[in-house]
Amino acid sequence: MPAFERHVFVCCNSRPAGAQRPSCTADGNSSLHTEMKKQAAAAGLKDRVRINKSGCLDQCEHSPVVVVYPEAVWYGHVKPEDAAEIVGEHLLGGRPVERLRLADECLNTKSCAHRR
Amino acid sequence: MPAFERHVFVCCNSRPAGAQRPSCTADGNSSLHTEMKKQAAAAGLKDRVRINKSGCLDQCEHSPVVVVYPEAVWYGHVKPEDAAEIVGEHLLGGRPVERLRLADECLNTKSCAHRR
Repeated sequence: MPAFERHVFVCCNSRPAGAQRPSCTADGNSSLHTEMKKQAAAAGLKDRVRINKSGCLDQCEHSPVVVVYPEAVWYGHVKPEDAAEIVGEHLLGGRPVERLRLADECLNTKSCAHRR
Repeated sequence: MPAFERHVFVCCNSRPAGAQRPSCTADGNSSLHTEMKKQAAAAGLKDRVRINKSGCLDQCEHSPVVVVYPEAVWYGHVKPEDAAEIVGEHLLGGRPVERLRLADECLNTKSCAHRR
């Protein structure tokens, strides 16, 4: 892989007030994105992993949402205080953080236990 | 892969006037993103492929930039009129569009023929 060993996308989407689906951020600013970047830099991953902002990842009912490529590991309900664990365990250690993973049946679906 | 067969990120970054590195869009609105979505929907890929907006992908000298996961194929200097070829050849046919690919030596590097 010539570019990044891993490429992390942190949803920064913000919907208008009254929208039917939830938002990953209140105003487009993501403290989760900031903390992920900080932790990745502290772990020496700056040139190997990119922590990217993204538009809506369409898993809004599980917000805030993060996806890690190329392995396509999806995380939901991620808090800034989870960033160190994702960076240390997954991005550095190669072991996805199981407790934060979105269930297969919740991904890319029109209905799940969280989306009705 | 439980979520998307492919996940496409179209950089929509816009830098302030006078910035040292180029921008992928003038104002955050990407006609390339719009056209990619339109073409993917027309090809029947709506539930299998997601065409996402992203923040800066850090390959600014090759803007506008697109990356396709999970295969990590990077495209540069992509125009809206290239969208149909990327969708038809790559996203539908599985054959990356070689003429638009970023060279390995241009990716994730502090200097290349285009970045000094």
